Amino acid sequence: MNDKQPTIRIEQDSLGEIEILAEPYFGPQTARAVANFPISGVPISHFPVFIQALGYVKKAAAIANRDLGELEVTKATSIIAACDELIAGELIEHFPIDVFQGGAGTSVNMNANEVIANRALELEGYSRGRYDIIHPNNHVNVSQSTNDVYPTAIRLAILLSYGQLRDALKSLAEEFERKGNDFHMVIKLGRTQLQDAVPMTLGQEFRAFAATILDDVERLDEMARFFKKINLGGTAIGTGINTVPGYQDRAVKCLSQVTGIAFQSARNLVEASWDTGSFVLFSGMLKRTATKLSKICNDLRLLSSGPRGGLNEINLPPMQPGSSIMPGKINPVIPEVVNQVAFQVIGADLTITLAAEAGQLQLNVMEPVIAYNMLQSIGLMTNAVGVLQTKCIAGITANEAVCKRHLEQSTAVATALSPMIGYEQAAQLAKSVLSSGKTIREVLAEDPGLSEELIEFTADMHALTMPMRRELSN
Amino acid sequence: MNDKQPTIRIEQDSLGEIEILAEPYFGPQTARAVANFPISGVPISHFPVFIQALGYVKKAAAIANRDLGELEVTKATSIIAACDELIAGELIEHFPIDVFQGGAGTSVNMNANEVIANRALELEGYSRGRYDIIHPNNHVNVSQSTNDVYPTAIRLAILLSYGQLRDALKSLAEEFERKGNDFHMVIKLGRTQLQDAVPMTLGQEFRAFAATILDDVERLDEMARFFKKINLGGTAIGTGINTVPGYQDRAVKCLSQVTGIAFQSARNLVEASWDTGSFVLFSGMLKRTATKLSKICNDLRLLSSGPRGGLNEINLPPMQPGSSIMPGKINPVIPEVVNQVAFQVIGADLTITLAAEAGQLQLNVMEPVIAYNMLQSIGLMTNAVGVLQTKCIAGITANEAVCKRHLEQSTAVATALSPMIGYEQAAQLAKSVLSSGKTIREVLAEDPGLSEELIEFTADMHALTMPMRRELSN
Amino acid sequence: MNDKQPTIRIEQDSLGEIEILAEPYFGPQTARAVANFPISGVPISHFPVFIQALGYVKKAAAIANRDLGELEVTKATSIIAACDELIAGELIEHFPIDVFQGGAGTSVNMNANEVIANRALELEGYSRGRYDIIHPNNHVNVSQSTNDVYPTAIRLAILLSYGQLRDALKSLAEEFERKGNDFHMVIKLGRTQLQDAVPMTLGQEFRAFAATILDDVERLDEMARFFKKINLGGTAIGTGINTVPGYQDRAVKCLSQVTGIAFQSARNLVEASWDTGSFVLFSGMLKRTATKLSKICNDLRLLSSGPRGGLNEINLPPMQPGSSIMPGKINPVIPEVVNQVAFQVIGADLTITLAAEAGQLQLNVMEPVIAYNMLQSIGLMTNAVGVLQTKCIAGITANEAVCKRHLEQSTAVATALSPMIGYEQAAQLAKSVLSSGKTIREVLAEDPGLSEELIEFTADMHALTMPMRRELSN
Amino acid sequence: MNDKQPTIRIEQDSLGEIEILAEPYFGPQTARAVANFPISGVPISHFPVFIQALGYVKKAAAIANRDLGELEVTKATSIIAACDELIAGELIEHFPIDVFQGGAGTSVNMNANEVIANRALELEGYSRGRYDIIHPNNHVNVSQSTNDVYPTAIRLAILLSYGQLRDALKSLAEEFERKGNDFHMVIKLGRTQLQDAVPMTLGQEFRAFAATILDDVERLDEMARFFKKINLGGTAIGTGINTVPGYQDRAVKCLSQVTGIAFQSARNLVEASWDTGSFVLFSGMLKRTATKLSKICNDLRLLSSGPRGGLNEINLPPMQPGSSIMPGKINPVIPEVVNQVAFQVIGADLTITLAAEAGQLQLNVMEPVIAYNMLQSIGLMTNAVGVLQTKCIAGITANEAVCKRHLEQSTAVATALSPMIGYEQAAQLAKSVLSSGKTIREVLAEDPGLSEELIEFTADMHALTMPMRRELSN
Repeated sequence: MNDKQPTIRIEQDSLGEIEILAEPYFGPQTARAVANFPISGVPISHFPVFIQALGYVKKAAAIANRDLGELEVTKATSIIAACDELIAGELIEHFPIDVFQGGAGTSVNMNANEVIANRALELEGYSRGRYDIIHPNNHVNVSQSTNDVYPTAIRLAILLSYGQLRDALKSLAEEFERKGNDFHMVIKLGRTQLQDAVPMTLGQEFRAFAATILDDVERLDEMARFFKKINLGGTAIGTGINTVPGYQDRAVKCLSQVTGIAFQSARNLVEASWDTGSFVLFSGMLKRTATKLSKICNDLRLLSSGPRGGLNEINLPPMQPGSSIMPGKINPVIPEVVNQVAFQVIGADLTITLAAEAGQLQLNVMEPVIAYNMLQSIGLMTNAVGVLQTKCIAGITANEAVCKRHLEQSTAVATALSPMIGYEQAAQLAKSVLSSGKTIREVLAEDPGLSEELIEFTADMHALTMPMRRELSN
Repeated sequence: MNDKQPTIRIEQDSLGEIEILAEPYFGPQTARAVANFPISGVPISHFPVFIQALGYVKKAAAIANRDLGELEVTKATSIIAACDELIAGELIEHFPIDVFQGGAGTSVNMNANEVIANRALELEGYSRGRYDIIHPNNHVNVSQSTNDVYPTAIRLAILLSYGQLRDALKSLAEEFERKGNDFHMVIKLGRTQLQDAVPMTLGQEFRAFAATILDDVERLDEMARFFKKINLGGTAIGTGINTVPGYQDRAVKCLSQVTGIAFQSARNLVEASWDTGSFVLFSGMLKRTATKLSKICNDLRLLSSGPRGGLNEINLPPMQPGSSIMPGKINPVIPEVVNQVAFQVIGADLTITLAAEAGQLQLNVMEPVIAYNMLQSIGLMTNAVGVLQTKCIAGITANEAVCKRHLEQSTAVATALSPMIGYEQAAQLAKSVLSSGKTIREVLAEDPGLSEELIEFTADMHALTMPMRRELSN
Repeated sequence: MNDKQPTIRIEQDSLGEIEILAEPYFGPQTARAVANFPISGVPISHFPVFIQALGYVKKAAAIANRDLGELEVTKATSIIAACDELIAGELIEHFPIDVFQGGAGTSVNMNANEVIANRALELEGYSRGRYDIIHPNNHVNVSQSTNDVYPTAIRLAILLSYGQLRDALKSLAEEFERKGNDFHMVIKLGRTQLQDAVPMTLGQEFRAFAATILDDVERLDEMARFFKKINLGGTAIGTGINTVPGYQDRAVKCLSQVTGIAFQSARNLVEASWDTGSFVLFSGMLKRTATKLSKICNDLRLLSSGPRGGLNEINLPPMQPGSSIMPGKINPVIPEVVNQVAFQVIGADLTITLAAEAGQLQLNVMEPVIAYNMLQSIGLMTNAVGVLQTKCIAGITANEAVCKRHLEQSTAVATALSPMIGYEQAAQLAKSVLSSGKTIREVLAEDPGLSEELIEFTADMHALTMPMRRELSN
Repeated sequence: MNDKQPTIRIEQDSLGEIEILAEPYFGPQTARAVANFPISGVPISHFPVFIQALGYVKKAAAIANRDLGELEVTKATSIIAACDELIAGELIEHFPIDVFQGGAGTSVNMNANEVIANRALELEGYSRGRYDIIHPNNHVNVSQSTNDVYPTAIRLAILLSYGQLRDALKSLAEEFERKGNDFHMVIKLGRTQLQDAVPMTLGQEFRAFAATILDDVERLDEMARFFKKINLGGTAIGTGINTVPGYQDRAVKCLSQVTGIAFQSARNLVEASWDTGSFVLFSGMLKRTATKLSKICNDLRLLSSGPRGGLNEINLPPMQPGSSIMPGKINPVIPEVVNQVAFQVIGADLTITLAAEAGQLQLNVMEPVIAYNMLQSIGLMTNAVGVLQTKCIAGITANEAVCKRHLEQSTAVATALSPMIGYEQAAQLAKSVLSSGKTIREVLAEDPGLSEELIEFTADMHALTMPMRRELSN
C-alpha cells in the first residue's frame, strides 16, 4: 500500500493514450499541445493576467451553470474554488503551452479545463485524472466552447492590464506639464521643417507634449470600452449550441459580478465569434500612441543634441556612460529605447492586422497571435513610458542662455514685423540679418528709415509668443 | 495700345522673377512648386473636395479678419467672392501642384492665396498680378499661416467626404441584412478552422456581415469627430503670432458657420500644429474596415467556390466572362477587387503612420502624403463598397440543397448530443459517421442501444441553431 | 448603302449581348470590365510600359503559334502588326480598365486580345467585331491564358522600366561622389546618436551617401534578374493545357528575341503560375532603397537646419519661398518630398506583401494590385531621385567655418587622446572642456602636467579622420 | 586576511560609483544598463548565438591587437581565453541586459568587455575589478568601438544561425518533393480564383510547393552573403580613429580565421557604420519566405477542409483533439501555427524597416531592435518549418476518390476541347454540364452531333495535365 503518486500517469483523450508527468495539474490535451508547438519558448504563463482572466471566465460560467442546474452544486463549488486560485495568481506554472499555437485557443481552454478539473478533484480528495467525477469537458467546460471562452478571456486580460499603461501615460503627461510650468519663462526659437521659425517658450513646447499624451489617455479608455462587448454564451459559433436558454445572459452577468467590470453581450453573437475588430482598433490606438512617443523622443534627442555641435537647448539626465571608445560621451539612451519600443508596437499592429484579416467563416483561428501581440505591446509600452518619465523627463533641465541666443540670432522676429511693414519688406529684413550675421535689433537700429517703434516692439520676446495687436502709430 | 493680355506675365516672389502663363489665376509660388515636384503626375485638384475645403477655410478667415478690422471691407468682399467660387467647385484647374510635394503644404496654401487674390482682383476689375491692390500674403493670407490653414483644410476635406463612405457602408449593411432575412430558413453547416462544426442558418451568416459593417458605421462617426478640433488661428506654430486677440476664436466660429460643421479649437494649439494623431486614428479605423471587408469577401469567394470542386453554397451574380482560355468560367471579380482595395488601404495606413512618426518639433512636414493617402483611401473604399453592394451582394442566391447536404453528411449534430451522452461517446459517434460515410441519423438508427429520443432530437435542425434544453427523459 | 460605321455596335460574349462604342478597338469584355470596376479612376494606360509589354508578349505568342502551325500565316501577320503598334506606344487610349480590378488580369488580357483582334481585322480590311475572321480568344489568345500572359507582361513591364530608376540612382550616387570630392578638405564633427563624436570630413559624409546608393544600384540589378524567369506557355495553371508540345519553349525564345531580354522558363511552371515571390523580393529591395533615401534626406535636412538655431553645416539650394507667413524662410522642400515618396513606397511594399500572401491554390488573383504598386513605386522613385539629384544635391554648398567651429568647440578630440592617456583621464579632460566652455587645446595648454606632444597632436585634425599610430615619446 | 570575496563590490565608471553583486563577471556599465532598461524581461542571453558572436569578434580583435603590438601578449592570452569561453557557450548568464535598450549596443559591448576583463583577470589570478591590470576599455576594447563591434557581431550571429533555417527549409522542400512523387498519379481538379479550372495531379500541386521553397533556400544564401561585408576596424564612425594602420585589415582576417567565414571589409567604412541595408534586405527575404509559407498553409487548410463540407482532397495527420465542445473534431493546428509565425515575421520586418529608416548621421542607434527581431524571426521560422515538415507534411495522405470526383463532375475538360470546337461552343458545353448536373462525358455522349473523338479525348485525364496536340481527324 504505497500512497506515493507515480511520477508518470497515463491519461487518454479522443486521440488515444498519452503519458503525463504526475505532478502538474494539466492533462492530455495540454501535454499534446506542448509537444506540438515548440515554437518560441515563451509559455502563455508569460502573461499572468491572461491566466487570471481564464480563471474569471471559468468561474463565471461555473456559477451560471450551477444556478441554472447545469452543474451540480458540489462540483461547482470545487470548480469555483480552483478558479479562485487562478484568479489569485496561483498554479501559473501549470500553463506551459507556447504563445504561438494552432487551434484557435483550444489548447489554452483545455489547459484551463484540465488544471481546474484536477485541482477541483484534489480539493474533493480525489487523485488526478478521475474525470469520471469531474470532467474537463463535461463539467468544467459545460455550456462553453473555446470560441466564446478564449476571446472573452483575451478581452478581459486586456481590460485588466491596459489601465497600467493608461496610468503610466497620465503620469508622463503630468510630468511634461510640470516641466512645462518650470520652463514657462524660457524663451526660445520655434522651428518648422527644422528651420528657424518664430518665438515660443520651452514651456509651450513641453505643455504640448503633455497635451498630446493626455489626449491618448482619453482615447485609450474610449477604445478599451469595446472590449466589454463579449460573446460569452455563444459557444462554438455564436448560436449558443449546447447552452440552455438564459445561460448566455446569466454568464455575462456573472462575469461582470466577479470582475467588477460592466460586460455586455455583443449585439450579434455569430459576428462576435469571428470578429476581431476591437483588437484592430485598440491596436491602432496603441500604434498612434507609439508614433506620438516616438515623435516626442525624437524631439528630445534633437533638443538635447550636441552639446557643442547640436541644439543643446535642454539636458537629459545622464544615465550611463555613452561609449566604449569616446570618453565623456553621454547618450540619450532612454528616449532611444522608447523609440525602439514604438517600432515594436507598430510592427505588432501589422501582425494583428494580418491575423484579423485572416479570419475565415465562423472563427478567426489566428487569435493566439493577436493575444500575444496585444499583451506584449501593452506591457512593453507600460514599462517604456514609466522609464521615460522617471529616468528622463523628471530630470530634464533647460539651457536658458542657449535657447535665448538661438532666438536672438535668428530672423524669427521678422515675421512679427510683417503685419506692420508687409511681407516683402520683412523678407528683405530677414535677408539682411542672415547676410550680416547681426541680430535683427542691430539691423533695425542701423536703418534710420525705420520707425523707433519697430525696435521697441522687438524688445519683449514673450509678447511674441501669443496673439497681439501690432500697429504702427502712424 | 493693345489691351490684350500677353500670354506670359512676369511675377516675382522673394526668390526673384519668374515667368507665368497669363491665363491661370495662380502666381509665382504655384509655378515654382509645379516645376519643383514632377513626381506622381497627380495634381491636388484630383481631390476636388480638398480645393473646396481650402475655399471654406480662406473664406472663414476673410470674414473673421474683416469683422476684426484686419481686412478692408472691399477687399474682404472680393476675396470672399473668390472663395465662394472654390467652394462651388469652380477654378479647380488652377490647382496643378503634384500631390507629392515638400514644404508642408505651403505651396498649396500659396496656390489658394494666389488664385483667390488674382480672381478677386479680376472681380474688382484689375489685371492679374496687381498685388499692390490685393496681395496673396498680406491680404488673402492675413492672420494665417500654412501651418494652421492646411491642417484645417485636410480635416475639413475628410469631414466633407467620409460621409459618402459611411453611407455606402450603411447601405451595404442593409443589403446584408436583407439577404440575411431572405436566407433565414436556409439551414447549413457552420465551420470553424475550415472544418465542419455545428448547424447554423445562412441568414445568421449574412446578418453577421451586416452587424460587423454596421458597427464600423458607428465607429467611423466616432473617429471622425476628432477632426472637428482644429488649430485655425494658431498660425505658424500655434502661438497665434500675427493674429490679433480674438481672431482665433472668431475664425473657428466663422468656419463652423460657413460649413455647418461644429468646429472647436484644439485644446492646445501648439500641439495641434504638429500633431497628426487624428489622422492615425481615423486611418487605423479605415484599416479595420478594410480587414473586415477583406474577410467578408474571402468568405464570399469561399462560399461560392466551385461550382463542383468547392463549397458552392451561394451564387454570386456573374459579372463578366472569367477566363480567356477556360470557356464558361465565371469568377468572383467583385469580391476580388474589394480585397485589393483593402490591401491598398492597409498599405496607405502604413504610409500615414510613417509620416505621422516623422513629425519634428513644431510641425509635421509630411502632411501632404498623409492628406493624399487619407483622401485616396476614403475614395477607393467608397467606390469599392458601392460596387460590392450593387454588383455582388444584391444578386446573391442560395443553393439550399447543397447547404443542407453538407450539414446532413457532417458530424455537426454530434456536438448537440454531447450534453446528453457525454463528450467521449459523442466523439465515438462522430468517428462512426466519418468512417461509414453515413449520416448521423443513419448511424443512430443502427444502434439499438441508443434512445429513440436522440434520433428525434436530430430531426429539427433549426432548433440546433439556438440555445435549448436537451435532456433525455430517463 | 451607307458605309458609315454606326456609333454603337452590338457585340456578345458568353454572358450575352452588350452595346459598345463603335470607335474604340476594344470589345465586350473590356466594356464589361470598365463598367464593373469604377474604383480609382486610374486606367491601366496610366502605365504605357505595361501596354507595351502586353504587345511584346502577344507578339511573341503569335510568332510561336505561327511557326508551330497553330495560327495561319495571314492572321499571324495581321496580329503581329497590331502588336507592333502597341509596342510602339500607339492605341494606348483603348485600354481604359481601372488599375483596380478583379479577375486576376483576365480583363486586361482580353482588352489586349480585343484591341489586337479588331485592329488586325481593320488592317485586313474587315470591320470591327468580325470575330469569325480573327477571334480574340481563338486566334489572338491561342495557346495562351491570362494566367501566363499577364504575369509575364508585368515582369516585362518592370524590366522595361526599372532601368530608369537604376540610372537615376547611379547619377545620384555620382553626384554625391562629386560633392564628396569637393568637400574633401572640409573638416567637421562626426555625430553618433546626435551627440558630438569624433572628427571626420564632409567629404567622407557625402561619399558614404554615394556608396550606399551605389550598393543599391547593384542590388537592384540582381533582384531584377529574377523577373526573367517566366511562366509563358504554362497557360491556365502551369500544365500547358491547350498548347502543343514545343510551344512553351518557343514562346519564351520568341519573347527573348523581340525584346532583347534573355528570358528563361521558370523551373516549375505550376509554381510559377501562382508564385509572386519575385515581386515581394524586388519590392523589398525598393523598400530598402526607400529607407536609405529617407535616411539621407533626414540627414540633409538636419545638416542644413537653422540657419541660426540649427546645425547649418551645409546649404541646400533655395527652390521656393518657404512660408506664407514667415518672410525670408526657405525650406528643404526637395528632401521633404523624397521622404514622402519613401513612405509611399514602404506602404506599397506592404500592399504587395498582403497581396502575395493572399494567393490561393493555382493562382494569385491579387496580381493587379501588385502590378499597380510595383509600377507606381518605380515611377515615383525614379522621379524623386532625379529631382533630388538635380534640384538639391547638385547645388549644395558647405559652411566650412561652421563645420570647423563645431569640431573645435567639442570634446571630439578627447577620444583620440584616449589611447595615450587612458579612457578615464580622457573622460576627465572631456568634462573640463564641457564645464569650462573652452576648446580642448585651451584646456590642454592650461595643464602643465600634460605633455606638449598632446597639444601638438591635436593640431592636425585631418590626421584624426583616419587610422594612425599614437604614441607619446616617453 | 580574509580571502572570501565580499557579496557586494563597489566599482566606478565615469558617472561615479556603483554597487555590483560580487558573483557575476560583469561590471558597472552592465549594472547601470540592467537598471536603465526594465522593458521586456528578455535578456540578450536569450540568443546564445549572439553572445557567441561577441566572443568571436572580441577574440579576433585581441589577436589583431596582439600581433600589431597594441596589446601585451600576456593580457591578450587571457583575454582570448575568456573569449573562447563565450564562444563555447559558457558564461551566458552574465549577459543580463534587456534586448530592448538605448545606447546603440554600447551596453552590450561593455557587458562583453567587462565579463571578458573580469574573467581574464580571474584566469590570471586577480580578483574582479582589478582594471588597473586588465581594463574593459583600455585593453579588452582596444582599437574597437561599439559601433564596429556590435554591428559585426549581429551579422556574425545571423550567419551562425540562419543556416538552420535554410536546412529546415531544404528538408521541407524535400518532404514536399517526396509527397509530390507519391501523389504523382492522383488526378484532380486545378482551381483558379477558387473556381474549377483544369485538370492537374496532386503531385504537381505538391512539387510546386517544393519548388517555391527550394527557390527561397537559394535566395536566403544569396541575401546572407552581404552580412560578410563588415565594418570591423572602422571604430566610432568608420574613420578608424584609435586604430593603427593595418589593424582594420588584420582584424577582418582574424575574424575570418577564427570563424571560418570569409569576411571582407565593407567598401566604405563610414557608410558601413550607419547602414542597415543588409538587414532590411535579408528581413525582406524572410518576409517573402513567410508569405510563401503562409500561402502554402492556407492551401493545406483549404485542401483538407471538411471533411464533409469542404474540399477534403487531402488528410493532415491528426495532432490533437480539435475542440472543447465539438467531439471528434480535428483541426489543422500545425498549418495554423505556421500562419501565425508568418504574420509575426512580417510584423518584425516592419519594425526592422522603421528602425533602419531612423538612422541618423554617423550611426543607426536603433540596431538593438533590429538585432532582436532578426534573431527572433530566424528562430521562430526555423522551429515552425521543422514542425510543419515533421508533424504535418510527412503524414499527409490523399483522398484519391474525392480528387477524381471533383474533376469528373466539373467543367474542367471543356477547356481542353476548346481548341477543337472553339471557345464559344466549349462555353455552351460547360453551361450544359453545370445546368444538367451530369459529367461532361455524359453530356457529350448525348449529343449525336459531336465527334466520337471528343469523348475518347476526354478518357485520359492524365494527358490533360501536360501539353499535347489536339486535332479532330476531319
